[in-house]
Amino acid sequence: MFFNLGSKEFSEYNSKHLIPKKILLENYGEYASEIILPEFKDSFVLSQYRDFDLIELEQLLQSVGWGRRPLRRVKRALENSILKVGLWQHDQKFPRLIGFARCTGDGIIDATVWDVAIQPVYQGSGLGRRLMTYLIKRLKNIGVKRVTLFADANVISFYRNQGWILEPKGCKCAFWYSN
Amino acid sequence: MFFNLGSKEFSEYNSKHLIPKKILLENYGEYASEIILPEFKDSFVLSQYRDFDLIELEQLLQSVGWGRRPLRRVKRALENSILKVGLWQHDQKFPRLIGFARCTGDGIIDATVWDVAIQPVYQGSGLGRRLMTYLIKRLKNIGVKRVTLFADANVISFYRNQGWILEPKGCKCAFWYSN
Repeated sequence: MFFNLGSKEFSEYNSKHLIPKKILLENYGEYASEIILPEFKDSFVLSQYRDFDLIELEQLLQSVGWGRRPLRRVKRALENSILKVGLWQHDQKFPRLIGFARCTGDGIIDATVWDVAIQPVYQGSGLGRRLMTYLIKRLKNIGVKRVTLFADANVISFYRNQGWILEPKGCKCAFWYSN
Repeated sequence: MFFNLGSKEFSEYNSKHLIPKKILLENYGEYASEIILPEFKDSFVLSQYRDFDLIELEQLLQSVGWGRRPLRRVKRALENSILKVGLWQHDQKFPRLIGFARCTGDGIIDATVWDVAIQPVYQGSGLGRRLMTYLIKRLKNIGVKRVTLFADANVISFYRNQGWILEPKGCKCAFWYSN
Protein backbone atom coordinates (compact mmCIF):
# COMPACT_ATOMS: atom_id res chain seq x y z
CA MET A 1 0.00 0.00 0.00
CA PHE A 2 2.85 2.36 -0.80
CA PHE A 3 2.09 5.72 -2.28
CA ASN A 4 3.56 5.29 -5.74
CA LEU A 5 4.44 8.60 -7.32
CA GLY A 6 4.64 7.09 -10.77
CA SER A 7 1.03 5.99 -10.59
CA LYS A 8 -2.09 7.67 -11.87
CA GLU A 9 -2.27 9.86 -8.80
CA PHE A 10 -0.26 12.45 -10.65
CA SER A 11 -1.72 12.13 -14.11
CA GLU A 12 -5.20 12.97 -12.88
CA TYR A 13 -4.75 16.70 -13.21
CA ASN A 14 -7.18 18.38 -15.49
CA SER A 15 -5.48 19.59 -18.60
CA LYS A 16 -8.06 22.33 -19.19
CA HIS A 17 -7.10 25.83 -18.13
CA LEU A 18 -9.17 28.97 -17.69
CA ILE A 19 -6.47 31.16 -16.18
CA PRO A 20 -3.79 32.45 -18.58
CA LYS A 21 -0.35 31.16 -17.63
CA LYS A 22 0.99 34.67 -17.07
CA ILE A 23 -1.80 35.55 -14.62
CA LEU A 24 -1.34 32.22 -12.82
CA LEU A 25 2.39 32.87 -12.36
CA GLU A 26 1.93 36.50 -11.31
CA ASN A 27 -0.75 35.73 -8.76
CA TYR A 28 0.29 32.37 -7.39
CA GLY A 29 4.00 31.95 -8.14
CA GLU A 30 6.01 29.10 -9.58
CA TYR A 31 4.53 25.58 -9.63
CA ALA A 32 0.98 26.92 -9.18
CA SER A 33 -1.58 24.44 -10.47
CA GLU A 34 -5.09 25.23 -11.67
CA ILE A 35 -7.99 22.91 -10.89
CA ILE A 36 -11.30 22.98 -12.70
CA LEU A 37 -14.25 21.13 -11.24
CA PRO A 38 -17.45 20.74 -13.29
CA GLU A 39 -19.71 21.54 -10.32
CA PHE A 40 -18.16 24.97 -9.63
CA LYS A 41 -18.00 27.92 -12.00
CA ASP A 42 -14.82 29.36 -10.48
CA SER A 43 -11.53 27.62 -10.94
CA PHE A 44 -9.20 26.82 -8.06
CA VAL A 45 -5.45 27.16 -7.71
CA LEU A 46 -2.93 25.26 -5.61
CA SER A 47 0.04 27.42 -4.75
CA GLN A 48 3.26 26.96 -2.85
CA TYR A 49 4.29 30.62 -2.88
CA ARG A 50 1.27 32.92 -2.64
CA ASP A 51 1.38 34.71 0.72
CA PHE A 52 -1.32 34.22 3.30
CA ASP A 53 -3.36 36.76 5.14
CA LEU A 54 -2.98 35.46 8.70
CA ILE A 55 -6.51 36.38 9.72
CA GLU A 56 -7.99 34.64 6.66
CA LEU A 57 -5.86 31.58 7.41
CA GLU A 58 -6.97 31.47 11.03
CA GLN A 59 -10.60 31.79 9.97
CA LEU A 60 -10.16 28.85 7.62
CA LEU A 61 -8.52 26.72 10.33
CA GLN A 62 -11.23 27.62 12.80
CA SER A 63 -13.96 26.73 10.29
CA VAL A 64 -12.72 23.14 10.43
CA GLY A 65 -12.50 23.12 14.20
CA TRP A 66 -8.91 23.98 15.05
CA GLY A 67 -8.51 26.00 18.22
CA ARG A 68 -7.61 29.67 18.15
CA ARG A 69 -3.89 30.41 18.31
CA PRO A 70 -2.05 33.70 18.74
CA LEU A 71 -1.35 35.16 15.27
CA ARG A 72 2.20 36.05 16.27
CA ARG A 73 2.91 32.37 16.93
CA VAL A 74 1.17 31.25 13.75
CA LYS A 75 3.31 33.71 11.77
CA ARG A 76 6.53 32.30 13.19
CA ALA A 77 5.36 28.72 12.71
CA LEU A 78 4.67 29.47 9.03
CA GLU A 79 8.10 31.06 8.63
CA ASN A 80 9.70 27.92 10.05
CA SER A 81 7.70 25.49 7.93
CA ILE A 82 9.48 23.97 4.94
CA LEU A 83 6.37 23.99 2.76
CA LYS A 84 3.05 25.83 2.90
CA VAL A 85 0.35 25.05 0.37
CA GLY A 86 -2.67 27.27 -0.18
CA LEU A 87 -5.76 26.28 -2.13
CA TRP A 88 -7.37 29.38 -3.59
CA GLN A 89 -10.72 30.05 -5.16
CA HIS A 90 -9.48 32.07 -8.09
CA ASP A 91 -10.28 35.73 -8.48
CA GLN A 92 -7.84 37.98 -10.25
CA LYS A 93 -8.17 40.65 -7.57
CA PHE A 94 -9.14 38.79 -4.41
CA PRO A 95 -8.41 35.05 -4.43
CA ARG A 96 -10.06 33.44 -1.43
CA LEU A 97 -8.23 30.89 0.69
CA ILE A 98 -10.32 27.72 0.92
CA GLY A 99 -7.68 25.11 1.70
CA PHE A 100 -4.36 24.83 3.47
CA ALA A 101 -1.65 22.47 4.65
CA ARG A 102 1.89 22.95 5.87
CA CYS A 103 4.92 20.78 6.53
CA THR A 104 7.79 20.86 8.95
CA GLY A 105 10.88 18.74 8.66
CA ASP A 106 14.58 18.58 8.01
CA GLY A 107 13.94 19.00 4.28
CA ILE A 108 16.03 15.95 3.51
CA ILE A 109 14.85 12.80 5.20
CA ASP A 110 11.56 13.51 6.94
CA ALA A 111 8.63 15.84 6.60
CA THR A 112 5.51 16.01 8.75
CA VAL A 113 2.21 17.45 7.57
CA TRP A 114 0.20 19.75 9.85
CA ASP A 115 -2.92 21.91 9.74
CA VAL A 116 -4.64 20.28 6.78
CA ALA A 117 -7.91 22.13 6.20
CA ILE A 118 -10.54 22.40 3.49
CA GLN A 119 -13.33 24.95 3.88
CA PRO A 120 -16.44 22.89 4.87
CA VAL A 121 -18.41 24.02 1.79
CA TYR A 122 -15.80 22.37 -0.44
CA GLN A 123 -15.30 19.16 1.52
CA GLY A 124 -16.11 16.02 -0.43
CA SER A 125 -15.42 17.70 -3.78
CA GLY A 126 -12.03 16.06 -4.29
CA LEU A 127 -10.13 19.29 -3.58
CA GLY A 128 -8.60 17.87 -0.40
CA ARG A 129 -7.19 14.97 -2.34
CA ARG A 130 -5.75 17.35 -4.92
CA LEU A 131 -4.21 19.41 -2.15
CA MET A 132 -2.47 16.36 -0.67
CA THR A 133 -1.28 15.12 -4.05
CA TYR A 134 0.18 18.55 -4.80
CA LEU A 135 1.83 18.70 -1.38
CA ILE A 136 3.52 15.31 -1.79
CA LYS A 137 4.66 16.24 -5.27
CA ARG A 138 6.26 19.44 -3.94
CA LEU A 139 7.92 17.50 -1.08
CA LYS A 140 9.25 14.97 -3.54
CA ASN A 141 10.65 17.87 -5.53
CA ILE A 142 12.50 19.06 -2.40
CA GLY A 143 13.92 15.54 -2.07
CA VAL A 144 12.14 14.36 1.08
CA LYS A 145 12.11 10.56 1.50
CA ARG A 146 9.42 10.02 4.13
CA VAL A 147 6.30 11.99 4.90
CA THR A 148 4.30 11.49 8.06
CA LEU A 149 1.15 12.94 9.55
CA PHE A 150 -1.14 12.52 12.51
CA ALA A 151 -4.70 11.93 11.38
CA ASP A 152 -7.79 12.28 13.54
CA ALA A 153 -10.00 9.19 13.61
CA ASN A 154 -12.65 10.74 11.35
CA VAL A 155 -10.26 11.47 8.47
CA ILE A 156 -8.31 8.21 8.44
CA SER A 157 -10.18 6.81 5.44
CA PHE A 158 -9.45 10.06 3.55
CA TYR A 159 -5.73 9.38 3.84
CA ARG A 160 -5.93 5.62 3.46
CA ASN A 161 -7.82 6.02 0.17
CA GLN A 162 -4.91 8.09 -1.11
CA GLY A 163 -2.35 5.41 -0.38
CA TRP A 164 -1.08 6.49 3.02
CA ILE A 165 0.07 3.61 5.18
CA LEU A 166 -1.28 3.51 8.71
CA GLU A 167 1.13 2.56 11.49
CA PRO A 168 3.52 0.40 9.56
CA LYS A 169 5.07 -2.43 11.56
CA GLY A 170 2.97 -1.65 14.62
CA CYS A 171 4.43 1.85 14.86
CA LYS A 172 2.49 4.12 17.17
CA CYS A 173 2.46 7.84 17.53
CA ALA A 174 3.00 9.46 20.89
CA PHE A 175 2.27 12.98 21.98
CA TRP A 176 3.50 15.24 24.68
CA TYR A 177 1.71 18.50 25.43
CA SER A 178 3.21 21.51 27.09
CA ASN A 179 1.18 22.67 30.08
CA MET B 1 -1.55 10.85 31.51
CA PHE B 2 -0.15 14.20 30.47
CA PHE B 3 3.54 14.82 30.73
CA ASN B 4 3.64 17.36 33.53
CA LEU B 5 6.79 19.43 33.44
CA GLY B 6 6.28 20.58 36.99
CA SER B 7 6.36 17.02 38.29
CA LYS B 8 9.24 15.01 39.67
CA GLU B 9 10.45 14.14 36.18
CA PHE B 10 12.68 17.17 36.30
CA SER B 11 13.76 17.08 39.89
CA GLU B 12 15.30 13.64 39.47
CA TYR B 13 18.63 14.95 38.25
CA ASN B 14 21.56 13.96 40.34
CA SER B 15 23.00 16.93 42.13
CA LYS B 16 26.47 15.33 42.38
CA HIS B 17 29.05 16.49 39.85
CA LEU B 18 32.44 15.10 38.90
CA ILE B 19 33.17 17.41 35.98
CA PRO B 20 34.17 20.99 36.87
CA LYS B 21 31.64 23.48 35.53
CA LYS B 22 34.26 25.20 33.35
CA ILE B 23 35.26 21.92 31.65
CA LEU B 24 31.60 21.00 31.15
CA LEU B 25 30.88 24.34 29.44
CA GLU B 26 34.03 24.23 27.29
CA ASN B 27 33.47 20.69 26.08
CA TYR B 28 29.72 20.47 25.83
CA GLY B 29 28.38 24.01 25.61
CA GLU B 30 25.57 25.81 27.34
CA TYR B 31 22.85 23.80 29.13
CA ALA B 32 25.05 20.68 29.25
CA SER B 33 23.95 18.36 32.01
CA GLU B 34 26.11 15.78 33.80
CA ILE B 35 24.71 12.39 34.78
CA ILE B 36 26.33 10.10 37.31
CA LEU B 37 25.15 6.51 37.55
CA PRO B 38 26.39 4.30 40.42
CA GLU B 39 26.99 1.31 38.14
CA PHE B 40 29.43 3.14 35.82
CA LYS B 41 32.74 4.75 36.76
CA ASP B 42 32.59 7.36 33.97
CA SER B 43 30.13 10.15 34.09
CA PHE B 44 27.85 11.03 31.19
CA VAL B 45 26.89 14.35 29.69
CA LEU B 46 23.79 15.46 27.81
CA SER B 47 24.57 18.27 25.40
CA GLN B 48 22.60 20.38 22.97
CA TYR B 49 25.60 22.03 21.35
CA ARG B 50 28.59 19.67 21.14
CA ASP B 51 29.24 18.87 17.47
CA PHE B 52 28.90 15.35 16.14
CA ASP B 53 31.34 13.31 14.14
CA LEU B 54 29.05 12.07 11.40
CA ILE B 55 30.70 8.66 11.16
CA GLU B 56 30.47 8.14 14.92
CA LEU B 57 26.81 9.19 14.79
CA GLU B 58 26.03 6.78 11.95
CA GLN B 59 27.78 3.95 13.81
CA LEU B 60 25.62 4.66 16.85
CA LEU B 61 22.41 4.70 14.79
CA GLN B 62 23.38 1.49 13.04
CA SER B 63 24.15 -0.21 16.35
CA VAL B 64 20.46 0.15 17.21
CA GLY B 65 19.32 -1.09 13.84
CA TRP B 66 18.75 2.03 11.73
CA GLY B 67 19.56 1.61 8.06
CA ARG B 68 22.63 3.16 6.50
CA ARG B 69 22.09 6.62 5.02
CA PRO B 70 24.36 8.78 2.88
CA LEU B 71 26.43 11.01 5.22
CA ARG B 72 25.84 14.03 3.01
CA ARG B 73 22.10 13.70 3.58
CA VAL B 74 22.52 13.09 7.30
CA LYS B 75 24.62 16.25 7.54
CA ARG B 76 21.93 18.37 5.88
CA ALA B 77 19.18 16.77 7.96
CA LEU B 78 21.12 17.69 11.13
CA GLU B 79 21.59 21.26 9.91
CA ASN B 80 17.84 21.54 9.37
CA SER B 81 16.86 20.04 12.73
CA ILE B 82 15.76 22.47 15.42
CA LEU B 83 17.37 20.47 18.23
CA LYS B 84 20.05 17.79 18.36
CA VAL B 85 20.89 16.15 21.65
CA GLY B 86 24.01 14.06 22.19
CA LEU B 87 24.62 11.80 25.16
CA TRP B 88 28.35 11.51 25.75
CA GLN B 89 30.44 9.20 27.85
CA HIS B 90 32.70 11.83 29.34
CA ASP B 91 36.39 11.98 28.56
CA GLN B 92 38.17 15.29 28.60
CA LYS B 93 39.93 14.52 25.31
CA PHE B 94 37.67 12.09 23.49
CA PRO B 95 34.07 12.01 24.69
CA ARG B 96 32.29 9.07 23.13
CA LEU B 97 28.81 9.42 21.66
CA ILE B 98 26.53 6.81 23.23
CA GLY B 99 23.10 8.37 22.74
CA PHE B 100 21.31 10.67 20.36
CA ALA B 101 17.99 12.22 19.42
CA ARG B 102 16.97 15.06 17.14
CA CYS B 103 13.87 17.11 16.50
CA THR B 104 12.36 18.82 13.51
CA GLY B 105 9.54 21.31 13.66
CA ASP B 106 8.42 24.88 13.28
CA GLY B 107 10.05 25.77 16.59
CA ILE B 108 6.84 27.34 17.81
CA ILE B 109 3.87 25.03 17.83
CA ASP B 110 5.06 21.54 16.95
CA ALA B 111 8.20 19.47 17.22
CA THR B 112 8.72 15.88 16.14
CA VAL B 113 11.40 13.61 17.58
CA TRP B 114 13.48 11.40 15.27
CA ASP B 115 16.45 9.03 15.47
CA VAL B 116 16.35 8.27 19.19
CA ALA B 117 19.22 5.88 19.96
CA ILE B 118 21.05 4.59 23.00
CA GLN B 119 24.13 2.41 22.49
CA PRO B 120 22.95 -1.16 23.28
CA VAL B 121 25.48 -1.58 26.15
CA TYR B 122 23.77 1.30 27.98
CA GLN B 123 20.16 0.38 27.30
CA GLY B 124 18.11 -0.25 30.43
CA SER B 125 20.35 1.98 32.55
CA GLY B 126 17.94 4.90 32.66
CA LEU B 127 20.05 6.99 30.29
CA GLY B 128 17.41 6.89 27.55
CA ARG B 129 14.88 8.33 29.95
CA ARG B 130 17.30 11.08 30.93
CA LEU B 131 17.92 11.84 27.27
CA MET B 132 14.18 12.24 26.59
CA THR B 133 13.63 14.34 29.72
CA TYR B 134 16.49 16.63 28.70
CA LEU B 135 15.15 16.87 25.15
CA ILE B 136 11.67 17.88 26.30
CA LYS B 137 13.13 20.40 28.72
CA ARG B 138 15.13 21.98 25.89
CA LEU B 139 12.07 22.03 23.60
CA LYS B 140 10.05 23.65 26.35
CA ASN B 141 12.79 26.25 26.63
CA ILE B 142 12.43 26.97 22.90
CA GLY B 143 8.68 27.44 23.49
CA VAL B 144 7.29 24.41 21.67
CA LYS B 145 3.74 23.48 22.71
CA ARG B 146 3.34 19.94 21.34
CA VAL B 147 5.91 17.22 20.80
CA THR B 148 5.21 14.13 18.76
CA LEU B 149 7.09 11.01 17.82
CA PHE B 150 6.61 7.74 15.99
CA ALA B 151 7.52 4.82 18.22
CA ASP B 152 8.18 1.29 17.06
CA ALA B 153 6.05 -1.35 18.79
CA ASN B 154 8.94 -2.60 20.95
CA VAL B 155 9.64 0.78 22.56
CA ILE B 156 6.08 1.93 23.22
CA SER B 157 6.25 1.07 26.92
CA PHE B 158 9.50 3.07 27.19
CA TYR B 159 7.62 6.21 26.11
CA ARG B 160 4.39 5.41 27.91
CA ASN B 161 6.26 5.04 31.18
CA GLN B 162 7.58 8.55 30.74
CA GLY B 163 4.14 10.05 30.36
CA TRP B 164 3.76 10.15 26.60
CA ILE B 165 0.18 9.80 25.44
CA LEU B 166 -0.47 7.24 22.73
CA GLU B 167 -2.88 8.19 19.96
CA PRO B 168 -5.05 10.65 21.79
CA LYS B 169 -8.67 10.72 20.63
CA GLY B 170 -8.13 7.84 18.23
CA CYS B 171 -5.49 9.78 16.31
CA LYS B 172 -3.47 7.59 13.97
CA CYS B 173 -0.19 8.20 12.26
CA ALA B 174 0.15 7.77 8.54
CA PHE B 175 3.26 7.42 6.46
CA TRP B 176 4.16 7.98 2.87
CA TYR B 177 7.46 6.72 1.49
CA SER B 178 9.27 8.03 -1.53
CA ASN B 179 10.08 5.30 -4.00
